[in-house]
Amino acid sequence: PAEGAAESVIAPALPPLLDLAGTAVFALSGALVAARLKQTFVTLSFFALVTGVGGGTVRDLLIGVRPFWLDDQWVAPLIFAVALVAWFTPRRWWEGALLEWADAAGLATYAVIGTAKALAYGVAPVPAVVVGVISGCAGGIVRDLLAGLPSILMRPELYVTAAALGAALCALGSVAGLPPAPVWSAAALAAFALRGAALIWRIELPAYSRQA
Amino acid sequence: PAEGAAESVIAPALPPLLDLAGTAVFALSGALVAARLKQTFVTLSFFALVTGVGGGTVRDLLIGVRPFWLDDQWVAPLIFAVALVAWFTPRRWWEGALLEWADAAGLATYAVIGTAKALAYGVAPVPAVVVGVISGCAGGIVRDLLAGLPSILMRPELYVTAAALGAALCALGSVAGLPPAPVWSAAALAAFALRGAALIWRIELPAYSRQA
Amino acid sequence: PAEGAAESVIAPALPPLLDLAGTAVFALSGALVAARLKQTFVTLSFFALVTGVGGGTVRDLLIGVRPFWLDDQWVAPLIFAVALVAWFTPRRWWEGALLEWADAAGLATYAVIGTAKALAYGVAPVPAVVVGVISGCAGGIVRDLLAGLPSILMRPELYVTAAALGAALCALGSVAGLPPAPVWSAAALAAFALRGAALIWRIELPAYSRQA
Repeated sequence: PAEGAAESVIAPALPPLLDLAGTAVFALSGALVAARLKQTFVTLSFFALVTGVGGGTVRDLLIGVRPFWLDDQWVAPLIFAVALVAWFTPRRWWEGALLEWADAAGLATYAVIGTAKALAYGVAPVPAVVVGVISGCAGGIVRDLLAGLPSILMRPELYVTAAALGAALCALGSVAGLPPAPVWSAAALAAFALRGAALIWRIELPAYSRQA
Repeated sequence: PAEGAAESVIAPALPPLLDLAGTAVFALSGALVAARLKQTFVTLSFFALVTGVGGGTVRDLLIGVRPFWLDDQWVAPLIFAVALVAWFTPRRWWEGALLEWADAAGLATYAVIGTAKALAYGVAPVPAVVVGVISGCAGGIVRDLLAGLPSILMRPELYVTAAALGAALCALGSVAGLPPAPVWSAAALAAFALRGAALIWRIELPAYSRQA
Repeated sequence: PAEGAAESVIAPALPPLLDLAGTAVFALSGALVAARLKQTFVTLSFFALVTGVGGGTVRDLLIGVRPFWLDDQWVAPLIFAVALVAWFTPRRWWEGALLEWADAAGLATYAVIGTAKALAYGVAPVPAVVVGVISGCAGGIVRDLLAGLPSILMRPELYVTAAALGAALCALGSVAGLPPAPVWSAAALAAFALRGAALIWRIELPAYSRQA
């Protein structure tokens, strides 16, 4: 892949701020899970870190570039700040609804950035959507695996579907030649809205229910 | 590693069809696990995807090449087709025996392809066997982790052993200078037969049973 | 990253023996877990392998170099020897204390090597510490995930903290321009001592205990 070319194109187009936003919201969800499990501050930071950078790391390894946080001085302070917030504020500020919504924001953000970055590195649209879905879901999967919780994939409300919606809209907009910034915003909002609607109204797709 | 050289050699030698075959059988086993857990069609497709491409992805990341499905337009439609089949057919067609046999076919296929691809990219024979065993087992491991099931590694019948047999035969044939196609077929058949025999006759190696 | 330059510098500075040491102690902890679960010799070797090379593999994938054991002829024999030792000796030689101490030695070794190797490949100090912590913890995480055990991260005694101490000391020493060998030894000893003290005196950091 023409990485040199891609990087000069992508540098302005995919501001690291987006990666930091996805990292921050997933990091909060990781820290909250560790707090609920009564872990120490260091373990809480580790959960924040791994959940926060998990999706972006899987994405970058798949695309074949060095994971973004290795060349970014802001990720570590950000994770630390998120962990401090989770440690020093009452858990009821975050528990229940907020944890789900932080996860939803991470899911939407990473699904769209993952697709956009894969496209920018020359991945074809369909596999780019797959990269987006995987990088959106990876953070929550890693967090639940580390914590020994049932995977978020298994909850009845739409989850992978929301990531797939965001990733597909992002790829469609790019194929149609629309300007990136509005496409990414709309795609992330759509994914977030669908996951949010699923949380509020317990929207579920029909589950497999065939009699054996 | 001389990737340019390897790729011109490997392109005809390792047809993408093999990767697609390994992907399809593992994808079916992933979709069936998700169906048994009463998931939606989208989650079922996600399980099919991650289980299907898991072994090949780990293999390619270890070898240092871009995972095969990023540059292949057929993986996504294939996964989708497998998920449709799993969704629309009675589960009893697949459950029990067939799920185990699909997993056995995936194990055998990926163990041999993994070894062959590692050799083609200049990995020494012994580490190439290790790459083969890991890529054979990774799909089933990821599937069971995501589903929260006890790992297939823990079942009493031979599993890793069958992967190791296929990978070792593949490397031996290659070191002996035998033609690739028959070696690969024989190695994959041997691995499949050993895993199959283990399933039918409940063949088990002696387990660790030392008194503490 | 200037890999050519880094490799000529690192080749003498980071002898493969260190990687082999980290691999051996984690491999023993993996083999012992498989023995306790009454697995076969092959599965026991697989656990030894994946636990042993897990941390170094994650580290090398993050840094962007081929995992060390793909170009090393000694890892496979070493794993095999460790598995033989675990198989043929009474489990009570190893159980309980020794398993924990082997894990502690692996944690300390990989945390420091991970940081040193990341620095040698041009990663900035703060992300290099993060790479060290992740590569120190990855082996134990993978082992417990495969075995279906509660993650070692969740045990009350200091774990991530010990890895963070070793990684931070290693990076500090490097930033201060101190000679590598004594810095690495001191950092690994400090990490090992902290984890050991936590095991002996059940040292725990305060856990999150805020009332909801």
